[in-house]
Amino acid sequence: MKALVLLSGGIDSTTCLGMAVSLYGREEVCALSLSYGQKHTKELEAAEKTAEYYQVEWLSMDVSNIFTYSTCSLLKHSQEEIPHESYAEQLKKQEGTPVSTYVPFRNGLFLSAAASIALSKGCSLIYYGAHSDDAAGNAYPDCSSEFHQAMNQAIYTGSGKQVMLEAPFVSWTKAEVVKKGLELGVPYALTWSCYEGGEKPCGSCATCIDRAAAFKKNNAEDPAL
Amino acid sequence: MKALVLLSGGIDSTTCLGMAVSLYGREEVCALSLSYGQKHTKELEAAEKTAEYYQVEWLSMDVSNIFTYSTCSLLKHSQEEIPHESYAEQLKKQEGTPVSTYVPFRNGLFLSAAASIALSKGCSLIYYGAHSDDAAGNAYPDCSSEFHQAMNQAIYTGSGKQVMLEAPFVSWTKAEVVKKGLELGVPYALTWSCYEGGEKPCGSCATCIDRAAAFKKNNAEDPAL
Repeated sequence: MKALVLLSGGIDSTTCLGMAVSLYGREEVCALSLSYGQKHTKELEAAEKTAEYYQVEWLSMDVSNIFTYSTCSLLKHSQEEIPHESYAEQLKKQEGTPVSTYVPFRNGLFLSAAASIALSKGCSLIYYGAHSDDAAGNAYPDCSSEFHQAMNQAIYTGSGKQVMLEAPFVSWTKAEVVKKGLELGVPYALTWSCYEGGEKPCGSCATCIDRAAAFKKNNAEDPAL
Repeated sequence: MKALVLLSGGIDSTTCLGMAVSLYGREEVCALSLSYGQKHTKELEAAEKTAEYYQVEWLSMDVSNIFTYSTCSLLKHSQEEIPHESYAEQLKKQEGTPVSTYVPFRNGLFLSAAASIALSKGCSLIYYGAHSDDAAGNAYPDCSSEFHQAMNQAIYTGSGKQVMLEAPFVSWTKAEVVKKGLELGVPYALTWSCYEGGEKPCGSCATCIDRAAAFKKNNAEDPAL
């Protein structure tokens, strides 16, 4: 096995999976989805479906105990409401601190878990779908290029130089991710982004807003709507 | 709360706890012990006892599912035998690769989990007891100074500059750690290091060998024997 892909079930990580499969072939790729105690299971169901679509091995694990003490609004046990406005609007109010949907150091935890599993499965590469729109204004500091570089160094060194990270979209916008995905024929109809777990995407949470804008910039319809 | 200390129940992390308590006072310190699927519970019981001794809040969580696919000899599900020889003897046979008791990227995973929890508990510092003897010859690459620096940068950046790592022993030998601990009056009688889970320490696994040597260099008796 060559590459392990962190797969949330959203459009960024699914594009990442499509890219890894196109580079290495499905037998050299596995996908890892981690449950962190989110309010709904829609995105994990989406992850399973896209892994099935690509016929790659799918690993799923629960790490929600780590977030027991967090009040992040994405978590099932949290009393915080998910904001229904864009990241830009949220960031105006909070002077450079992460947004309320920032799950504390989630990407660091997920990448470390991925590194442990990559070592066990003999994968030398970990792919994940961080992009520059999520890092903008410090909304999600664990999506930034600086974080990626440091985490890559930590994983490379701490694994005895056996595993490296690949974040192919870290300097791309979400619209550029979708452009790449449309070229690759990524099955966006199977994905789920909305922070709420309704029957249909709410259309007004920050990730719904960003997803719609990314498709619009590509003059494309979102096949999941 | 100021500092979160990763506490395994061995002498290095317990010395770290003693140091953090002496610096900040017991009310500003909490200890985190993670179960990773090890063959015995002796070290976790020791961790609980030392947290009680220092009267600090003790958090304990199970992350063993992450190591499901690992064959590391420390793990309960592994068929591998724990080696009964020093790290130096083991390293002679394996050309710079980690020892069989290296749990894949365990320190990276533990520090990432600690960062998530530190953010939730309002701690700005994470202490852990990595030292240079464990990093020597690449036995445990996730104990090295290079790993520490990169991981610190990843956690600082990825947490939105809210959390930093402290590895006070990263350039010290284990004997120097014990020297410091003896000065601080660390309750070594309560600690457990042996990789085997017998009634008494086996005396012949690599960590028993290192522990005995560290006390001997300080002309001190090990109060746990």
